Amino acid sequence: MIERIRTRISDLLQIRYPIMQAGMIWASGYKLAVACAEAEILGTIGSAGMNQELFRSQIRKAKALTKRRFAVNIPLLRADAAELLEIALAEGIEVIITSAGNPAVLGPRVRKAPGVLWIHVVPSVKHGLKAQDAGADIVVGEGFEAGGHNGVDEITTLALIPQLADALSVPVAAAGGIADGRGFLAAMALGAEGISVGTRFACTQESSSHPNYKQAVAAANDAATVLFAKRIAPVRAIRNPWVERVRQAEASGATREELEKVYGHSHSRKGILEGDVEEGELEAGQSCGLIRDVPKAAEVVRRFVEEYERDLDRIRRFQP
Amino acid sequence: MIERIRTRISDLLQIRYPIMQAGMIWASGYKLAVACAEAEILGTIGSAGMNQELFRSQIRKAKALTKRRFAVNIPLLRADAAELLEIALAEGIEVIITSAGNPAVLGPRVRKAPGVLWIHVVPSVKHGLKAQDAGADIVVGEGFEAGGHNGVDEITTLALIPQLADALSVPVAAAGGIADGRGFLAAMALGAEGISVGTRFACTQESSSHPNYKQAVAAANDAATVLFAKRIAPVRAIRNPWVERVRQAEASGATREELEKVYGHSHSRKGILEGDVEEGELEAGQSCGLIRDVPKAAEVVRRFVEEYERDLDRIRRFQP
Repeated sequence: MIERIRTRISDLLQIRYPIMQAGMIWASGYKLAVACAEAEILGTIGSAGMNQELFRSQIRKAKALTKRRFAVNIPLLRADAAELLEIALAEGIEVIITSAGNPAVLGPRVRKAPGVLWIHVVPSVKHGLKAQDAGADIVVGEGFEAGGHNGVDEITTLALIPQLADALSVPVAAAGGIADGRGFLAAMALGAEGISVGTRFACTQESSSHPNYKQAVAAANDAATVLFAKRIAPVRAIRNPWVERVRQAEASGATREELEKVYGHSHSRKGILEGDVEEGELEAGQSCGLIRDVPKAAEVVRRFVEEYERDLDRIRRFQP
Repeated sequence: MIERIRTRISDLLQIRYPIMQAGMIWASGYKLAVACAEAEILGTIGSAGMNQELFRSQIRKAKALTKRRFAVNIPLLRADAAELLEIALAEGIEVIITSAGNPAVLGPRVRKAPGVLWIHVVPSVKHGLKAQDAGADIVVGEGFEAGGHNGVDEITTLALIPQLADALSVPVAAAGGIADGRGFLAAMALGAEGISVGTRFACTQESSSHPNYKQAVAAANDAATVLFAKRIAPVRAIRNPWVERVRQAEASGATREELEKVYGHSHSRKGILEGDVEEGELEAGQSCGLIRDVPKAAEVVRRFVEEYERDLDRIRRFQP
C-alpha cells in the first residue's frame, strides 16, 4: 500500500492520506470521527442534529479516545452556529468545517483563533471565491451527486472541481459521488488535492446511523437517489414513499408553505437515526450504487488507498 | 506529446487517442467530423436537425475530404431513424452511434451489417445493460452535466462511470462535463476507456454552430446552464430569457400541453444555428465554464492529450 499521498491538504491537516470524512447529520458522532482519525485521515463530528450539550459531550468523548486531531462540522444555517463554534474552540478543536451558509458570518471569528484551520464547503465557483476571500484555508467543492443538502446551481463534481481549482489559490477538495479509489483518483486528476467523503463513511460500522439506513444504502443502485425539496432546501436522499409525496407536491406547483407541510419535520432523524426506510429522509449520494457492505471505517480507508494505487497503475498501462 | 493512449476503445475504433467527438444538433456537420478524423480521433456527423437528403450529402462531402473512418450519430427518437441508418450503411459508414432511445429497435439491423461497429449512449446502468444485451460494442455513459438531451435519473458522470464499468463487460466511454485533459484523465481513472466530448467540439472553428453560440459558450461560467423541460424531454442549455419562461411554466405546475406551448418549436435551430442567444436553445454542458476560446478541432485534441500527460505527471508527484 502507498505509504502516503502528499498534497497541500494532507500537509495542512497533518494526515497520511488527503481524505476527509464528512460531517453528516445523525451519522457522524464521536465513534466515526475517532475511527477515521486513528486511520490517519481527517475524522469529523457533525454537529447537525446535536444540541449544544450533546455536541460538547461528543467532542469530549472523542478526545478521551484519540490523541489525534479531528474536526467538527458546523452548518451555518443553524441559528446557534456561533455558539457551536465557541464550544468547539473552547474544547480545543483545531479544524473547523463550515457548510450551508455565508462564510463571512463565522469566518472572522475562526480566523481570530490561533492555529485553527478553517475548511468551507461550496457548491459553485462564486461561493468558492467568497470562501477564499473570507480566509478559508481549504475549500471543499461539493457536487450535485452528493447526499444531503445541496446547492441550487446543480453543478456536478466533475464539472465543478477543475473550475474551482482554476479560480482559487487555496487548495480544493472534492466532495460528491466518491466512494472508491476510482473516484479518489479522478478527483485528484480534476485538480483536487483531497476528497471529502460522506455516504461511504455513513455506511460503516462506526457510523451512528441506524442499521436499516446502512442496509438501504448498501442495497441502493445508481438511480436510487433524487434531489428534491428544491423550493425549501434542495436535499438528495433515497427515493421512498415519503420522498415521492414531496415530489408530487412539487410537481403540482404547490406553494412553499404547502410544500413545507408535506415535507414536515424530523424526517432525517426518522430515517437515518431511527431507521424508518419508508417515511424517513435517507440522505445519501449517487455513489450509493458503489456501496455493497458495512465495513469498519479503517477498512474503507485501506480500500480507498489500495484502489487508488491499483487504478493509477491501470491508467499508466494505457501508454505503450 | 504521448504518442498514443491505447484502450479497447482506441483499438476497436482504430484511433490514436480514445476520444470521440459527439454528434450534436446543428453543431457537428461534415467539417467537424473530417477535422476530428484527420486528428486521429473519432469524428462524427450528427444527423439530428438534418433531413435524409442533407444527411446523405454531408456523409458524401466528408468522404470526399478524408480517407479516415468517421461515425454518424442517429437519435432513436427520430421517426425516420431506420431510414437514416439505411442511408449511413449504404454510404459505407462503419461506426454507428445511437442515442436517446431503445437500443433494441435498430440494434439488430446494425448487427447484421458486417464489420460495422455499434456505439450506444446511455444515462444509467439499467440502460447500459440493455445496450450490451442488444449487442452494442461500446457503451457511452452520459452524465447529468452533459449538454443537450439527458436522462431522467440525473446520474452524474462521476457516479455513473464506475458503476457502468462494474456492470458491463463491453468497454465504457464517459460523456458529460469533460472539456480538458483533467476531465479526460478523470474519466479514465473512473474506469472509462475513452471519452465522448460535445460542448468543447461545438465551440471549435469547424463546428457548424453560429459564432454567437460559440461566443456564448466561451463566455459561460460553471453555473450558466440548467437542465429544464423535464416534463417534455429534459435538456441542458445556457440560461436565457426563453429558458427562464419555460422554467417558470414548469415551476407553476403547468400541464405537459401548456409546457409544450411555452417550449415551442425550433428553438435549438434558432439558438445554435441562427445565433439567437436570447430566444434560442443554446445546448451546452456544465463544462462550458472551462471553455474560453474557439480553436481548431485539432488544437482541442492536442490540448486534451498534452494536459492528460501533464496531469498524470502532477498526480504521480503526490506519492513521495
